[in-house]
Amino acid sequence: MQQKQLINWLMILLFNGICFTPKAQTVVEDFKPSSTNQPGRDYPMVNSEGRVRVQIKAPEAKRVQLDIGAVKYDLVKDTAGIWTGESAPQDEGFHYYQLWIDGAAVPDPGSLYFYGAMRWGSGIEVPAHDQNIYALKNVPHGQVRQILFFSESTNTIRRAFVYTPPDYENNLNKRYPVLYLQHGFGEDETGWTNQGKAHLIMDNLIAEGKAKPFIIVMTYGMTNEIEFGGLRNFDIKPFQTVLVDELIPYIDKNFRTLSDQPNRAMAGLSMGGFETRLITLNNLDKFAYIGLFSGGTISVEDVRNTPGLKQKVKLVFVGYGSRELDSMKTNARNFGGNLKDITDAVAKEGLNTHFYVSPNTAHEWQSWRRSLYEFAQLLFK
Amino acid sequence: MQQKQLINWLMILLFNGICFTPKAQTVVEDFKPSSTNQPGRDYPMVNSEGRVRVQIKAPEAKRVQLDIGAVKYDLVKDTAGIWTGESAPQDEGFHYYQLWIDGAAVPDPGSLYFYGAMRWGSGIEVPAHDQNIYALKNVPHGQVRQILFFSESTNTIRRAFVYTPPDYENNLNKRYPVLYLQHGFGEDETGWTNQGKAHLIMDNLIAEGKAKPFIIVMTYGMTNEIEFGGLRNFDIKPFQTVLVDELIPYIDKNFRTLSDQPNRAMAGLSMGGFETRLITLNNLDKFAYIGLFSGGTISVEDVRNTPGLKQKVKLVFVGYGSRELDSMKTNARNFGGNLKDITDAVAKEGLNTHFYVSPNTAHEWQSWRRSLYEFAQLLFK
Repeated sequence: MQQKQLINWLMILLFNGICFTPKAQTVVEDFKPSSTNQPGRDYPMVNSEGRVRVQIKAPEAKRVQLDIGAVKYDLVKDTAGIWTGESAPQDEGFHYYQLWIDGAAVPDPGSLYFYGAMRWGSGIEVPAHDQNIYALKNVPHGQVRQILFFSESTNTIRRAFVYTPPDYENNLNKRYPVLYLQHGFGEDETGWTNQGKAHLIMDNLIAEGKAKPFIIVMTYGMTNEIEFGGLRNFDIKPFQTVLVDELIPYIDKNFRTLSDQPNRAMAGLSMGGFETRLITLNNLDKFAYIGLFSGGTISVEDVRNTPGLKQKVKLVFVGYGSRELDSMKTNARNFGGNLKDITDAVAKEGLNTHFYVSPNTAHEWQSWRRSLYEFAQLLFK
Repeated sequence: MQQKQLINWLMILLFNGICFTPKAQTVVEDFKPSSTNQPGRDYPMVNSEGRVRVQIKAPEAKRVQLDIGAVKYDLVKDTAGIWTGESAPQDEGFHYYQLWIDGAAVPDPGSLYFYGAMRWGSGIEVPAHDQNIYALKNVPHGQVRQILFFSESTNTIRRAFVYTPPDYENNLNKRYPVLYLQHGFGEDETGWTNQGKAHLIMDNLIAEGKAKPFIIVMTYGMTNEIEFGGLRNFDIKPFQTVLVDELIPYIDKNFRTLSDQPNRAMAGLSMGGFETRLITLNNLDKFAYIGLFSGGTISVEDVRNTPGLKQKVKLVFVGYGSRELDSMKTNARNFGGNLKDITDAVAKEGLNTHFYVSPNTAHEWQSWRRSLYEFAQLLFK
């Protein structure tokens, strides 16, 4: 896949969304408060079909709408001035949404808030058949640490979150491999834990013996500073400098890492996958594992044009939501071919590849949670 | 101060607020975006008088208001449907606020969100003359770690945040004293870092050599589960069990603590001060330092009725905002006397006390940031 094609396709996924027409016409009345509600709030609710029902008191309002999955649903007012209404069924997993009150776009006061679509705003969890992989369980838990590091190239104090595995504090002689994990466009360094539940996915995998304990570092990918008109001229250098020349040395100094190339991985979702591909291919001496979650793939041209890639990279993981792949079929001209075929062709060049499809999910967090769950089990082994 | 009097007084502060009438009638036009805005947002703004100006697009709305400091201010709509308006001058420091749009109380989409008043909602920072004490500077920074621990008594997995000082990760043989630090009613374990900036206060104090490096543990004080009708029968036992029997052992196992009594402190603001007083007096073998920030005091009766208190407690710190003390003068019958006099009387009993007054602040975070700043310099020395 060429860079330009990848960008075209990311644009389509980001800005058009992937909508599907609900088939059910009657609403199943088994709504329950969502797990992403503020403490003690009954609304928003979700039912077994994945419909989202919201409620807000706005006695003087003329029109109130729920805005989710790029569709606005009108709410209905009762005599007490309370507005209620629900969406069509949503896919399993996490979705951003907002309310419209007489033309004002505002967060739902009932939900917790998440950073995505370039704003802190409402999000909601639609229970998934495989939510067990990121459930909060009574297993040993790692820590999620906020660190502040000085970046000389940007002359700023920058934030990252660092997941350390459960045994990190009780094993002071042990050193750990590290995964650098990037969010997508419009998101930030809070996304992988708040929306992605990366720390719970890891705690559960480690408790089951399915993944080797490793550190995860999540920082801001500077993607929101990209003007969209200028994306075709996207320059990876500023972020690459922060990540490779500033953050990695900080992490290796302040955490008990294994700092050689075979013990460092990078992955990202959407724009973060785009960044991962560029940074890892520019730094084959530093990264052994590459994870691209709904963010392109490594092409045969990449393999042929990048000396050392075949020798140094232990795994290229490519993950997508099935609805993304469906969408690509109908937009084939933009994508330079079938992603599975491209990945298989790369494997034939001699690279270890893994292609993963998340069932019935789109360009959303459930695809990326599942991708991390699969990718983590293949790392550092 | 009797427990009943303390409760009366906490009620007054919590539910009446402390309002003052603005004197300035003309608005100084030097508004700037607040430091607590979402990335890239111009509004809300604050001017040099401490006025808060908000702006929101709501073309179909009939009435939009800014609700801050227990006063609602009407906004004015322009021809593009954008509403703008400002408050009277606010005190220095952090304040919760919200917007009303045609009768709906919602967060301002321009601000970051904070947990207080029992909801995630808008907050705004009014620059303070002493903001240097919690400024983000290029000094060595500690970490703020989210931990998850199992609580048998409540059968829940509970969250705490743990501040570790800058040298913690580079000094693997060193052990540290611990401060347990509680939020107030309507708040949670996120308050002391998000609103209080406790980690930055500590980083700066340590960089200047003004405080001994120590660990801070912040967990949810279960205060929001108290029905206010039932506050007079407030039972400290459930939270005391979580803190003393479950969290302290977890911290001592998973962090490099000094776990003896002289190296453990507890402090809290408002309801958290109330909890601190009860828990420390019940556990003199575990806590050597007591910090009460706008949350009552230790009385002469406490000293006389609690065997061992004089011998075991190294410091009782009592901090208040000056506007709280002003309010107490006019409500003298509720408070059992002047707090400074009470604290001085306790000192005469032979206890080491420290009474601190935060200038020109009320029952708000600026009083508590300053109290922590003062208290931290007296700990573990």
